[in-house]
Amino acid sequence: MHNGFISKDHLKQVLNDVQHFLIQHKTPKSAQIPFVKLSEQQQQRLKQKLSHLHAADIAHILESLATEDRRDVWKQIPVEQRGEILLSLAEPVRESMLADMPIAEMVNAADKLHSKDIGDLANLASSLPEQAVNLILQSLTAEQRKQLEQALSYPAGTVGSLMDYSMLTATPEESVKEVLAYCRKLGTLPEHSHYIYIVDQHNTLMGLLPLQKLITSAFDKKVSEVMSHSTITFATGDSAEQATFTFNRYELIAAPVVDDENKLIGRICVDDIVDFMHESSEQQLLRQIGFVNSEDRFSGIFSSAQNRWLWLAINLFSAFIATRVIGAFEDKIVELVILATLMPIVSATAGNVGNQACTLIIRSLALGHVTDHNIRQFYIKEVGISLINGVIWGGIMGVFVGSLYSAGIGTVMGFAMLLNFVLTAFVAVSIPWLRHKYNLDPAMGAHVLVTFFADAFGFFIFLGMATAFL
Amino acid sequence: MHNGFISKDHLKQVLNDVQHFLIQHKTPKSAQIPFVKLSEQQQQRLKQKLSHLHAADIAHILESLATEDRRDVWKQIPVEQRGEILLSLAEPVRESMLADMPIAEMVNAADKLHSKDIGDLANLASSLPEQAVNLILQSLTAEQRKQLEQALSYPAGTVGSLMDYSMLTATPEESVKEVLAYCRKLGTLPEHSHYIYIVDQHNTLMGLLPLQKLITSAFDKKVSEVMSHSTITFATGDSAEQATFTFNRYELIAAPVVDDENKLIGRICVDDIVDFMHESSEQQLLRQIGFVNSEDRFSGIFSSAQNRWLWLAINLFSAFIATRVIGAFEDKIVELVILATLMPIVSATAGNVGNQACTLIIRSLALGHVTDHNIRQFYIKEVGISLINGVIWGGIMGVFVGSLYSAGIGTVMGFAMLLNFVLTAFVAVSIPWLRHKYNLDPAMGAHVLVTFFADAFGFFIFLGMATAFL
Repeated sequence: MHNGFISKDHLKQVLNDVQHFLIQHKTPKSAQIPFVKLSEQQQQRLKQKLSHLHAADIAHILESLATEDRRDVWKQIPVEQRGEILLSLAEPVRESMLADMPIAEMVNAADKLHSKDIGDLANLASSLPEQAVNLILQSLTAEQRKQLEQALSYPAGTVGSLMDYSMLTATPEESVKEVLAYCRKLGTLPEHSHYIYIVDQHNTLMGLLPLQKLITSAFDKKVSEVMSHSTITFATGDSAEQATFTFNRYELIAAPVVDDENKLIGRICVDDIVDFMHESSEQQLLRQIGFVNSEDRFSGIFSSAQNRWLWLAINLFSAFIATRVIGAFEDKIVELVILATLMPIVSATAGNVGNQACTLIIRSLALGHVTDHNIRQFYIKEVGISLINGVIWGGIMGVFVGSLYSAGIGTVMGFAMLLNFVLTAFVAVSIPWLRHKYNLDPAMGAHVLVTFFADAFGFFIFLGMATAFL
Repeated sequence: MHNGFISKDHLKQVLNDVQHFLIQHKTPKSAQIPFVKLSEQQQQRLKQKLSHLHAADIAHILESLATEDRRDVWKQIPVEQRGEILLSLAEPVRESMLADMPIAEMVNAADKLHSKDIGDLANLASSLPEQAVNLILQSLTAEQRKQLEQALSYPAGTVGSLMDYSMLTATPEESVKEVLAYCRKLGTLPEHSHYIYIVDQHNTLMGLLPLQKLITSAFDKKVSEVMSHSTITFATGDSAEQATFTFNRYELIAAPVVDDENKLIGRICVDDIVDFMHESSEQQLLRQIGFVNSEDRFSGIFSSAQNRWLWLAINLFSAFIATRVIGAFEDKIVELVILATLMPIVSATAGNVGNQACTLIIRSLALGHVTDHNIRQFYIKEVGISLINGVIWGGIMGVFVGSLYSAGIGTVMGFAMLLNFVLTAFVAVSIPWLRHKYNLDPAMGAHVLVTFFADAFGFFIFLGMATAFL
């Protein structure tokens, strides 16, 4: 099933080749035939280009193709490979591809995953419509069915949802020789079997036996003498995000997942962690800027627009509120129209200062560096930086504007920038921190909110000071 | 050396406990004694809190402490653990701690890493001053010295800089039994030995033998019969960022690093990849918002301010340029002062639209989804979304403003928003794409640039249309 690995550069070439091929053969030759279908021969050539590719590479190619081209490629993929490719796809792409796939085709693709692992099957099934899941459940043995139903019950973002079940177990009373003999009898070990999980007769986790240790230990030793007792375990309900940090801290390759009574349920492997990290770092990036979900790069324009509406609407509303501040000072602007020219500088630069502070605190919260005890230091630091920046850049701008227009305007400009920097930095630390305290996502729309405060404060301070002093 | 693993929650408790302890005992009791030193007894208690902790957990605690508290904690850490802790620290924190550490202390900490791996030692040495590195080199054997010098020559961000050297090798002619006997003779295998690297007598890589396969194969088989031939290899000069994607695509645990002639130089393990991913996702996040480097959360306010100056200065300059546009329309603003109130809405909302498009394309570039063939589709999609958003939100705002003030102002507002959305989206895709084409970092300061264009276009379009039609 697994075809050869290729280098990133080679993959880029194949991707270019496939894209070029599709453009060449699918561009309408005349206005009379707007949709071009690939001929039988062309389909064969496409199939050939894709043969020998690893499922993950085909997934990468599909992710880089426009929606209508994906279907042409998909048709050329052998059924046995389809389940694995669907698993490798980024979630939004997988969902958009499943959206126009017949139920029978989904079940067929899932079928080939059975033998491998119920965790993989659950992962795929969680994206499938109920009808397809029911068909898959019917094709399983009673025990598999129970496992799959259990696996499907873990919510996304938990360790349970990343878990798999194909681990090897042994008991502490067995000898090294017996465990080795058992492995040899199996012939091939499940993928990613780097540890043997040691459980007693009630399935309670007793320790881990790395294969490295199994190989180097004396044959007559008991497992209990050579296994490692100190091990980190996860519960199915643990946050997957937290698990990624634990894997990183301890350089883990795999870890057991246990229930309340320390009974072994499954394992979580580093490849699932790496996959989750890729997805969640993308989400964090997109959320700050106001995306509700990750999105398929080639999904319909309309559905993508919807994904970005919520925070765009909030942005529109908040910008409107911020500019009401300007309305209050209209008389002054008519009197001194240069204020209208200068006020966006006061707000835009503070927005930059605030967004820098905000991004840093969001990141620090994610890493677990912020506590009730040291939050004060984050405030001191960010407000301190904004103070220095305010003095320097406010000073430069004040002198510059002062020399261009009048000393009065320069002074107001400089102090308004300083004050706005400090206030915005304070708010930029407070927003993620308070959201974190109330168990909300600190990143969601953070930039939109910080920009709002930078604008509203900036207009008010600058125009207010100008009205008072000029 | 490796003490026990603890859960994330437990680590949080320990961190809180240590912070609380330091606050309690270091807060000045009176104004006469502004700096409080820990008593001998208090130091012992601190030491006890830290004993039994894994090096990675102590690193996490250090990262979460203020600079002056870090020194108190560091003093309580046994010398044997210090090298590993330094390795576990995030780079900016490591650098700030090394900055005020005596050379002898650095060399001492490094000393304890010798036996483990030249890759680890190189990783640490790359942060040390030349004087310390020279002392470390002197303490090594000639062969180790050569290896370390070689390891230090790989630039940061390359596979070479993440590589380690403690892999097991065997030849294809050996039998499974012989390899097993060799492992047993070693007693303990190096950390993360999940594969045995198969080389011929000239050290040319022939294949990989996973321990799983070694365990399950017949004793009398030759290695060449059971090893896997298809394997992905890296060169020392390959980009580490690209390697993370390859590891993720193929779910790799480790991979060999070879030279031009396919001779085995070292290996790269998934734990180094996970570590690199954590650091680089942070950098990508921070760069977009105008940080030059990652920074230590508790570093001096002044040095952190410098880290953010470049793009803040660019922001100030660009905001000034953008507002010059307003200057050109001052007469119109005096005539119709409501324009000054409304113009920031036109620019702020387009800034949001542009930053969404920009973030998405930066991310897609990083994932390798963008090619010369499909860049057109990115443009179509983002410009299309901006068009929809412009029609909807420009329409709503136009009607709203029209009903508040006059139909003319409403119409100008709506069309200005629509046009600004579309132009900004186009620019927001173009900036990262062009930078990528010219081999520059697509993320660097992207938000500052997009905001500039949203502002400049917005002011020009809105005020220009108002001047022409109102």
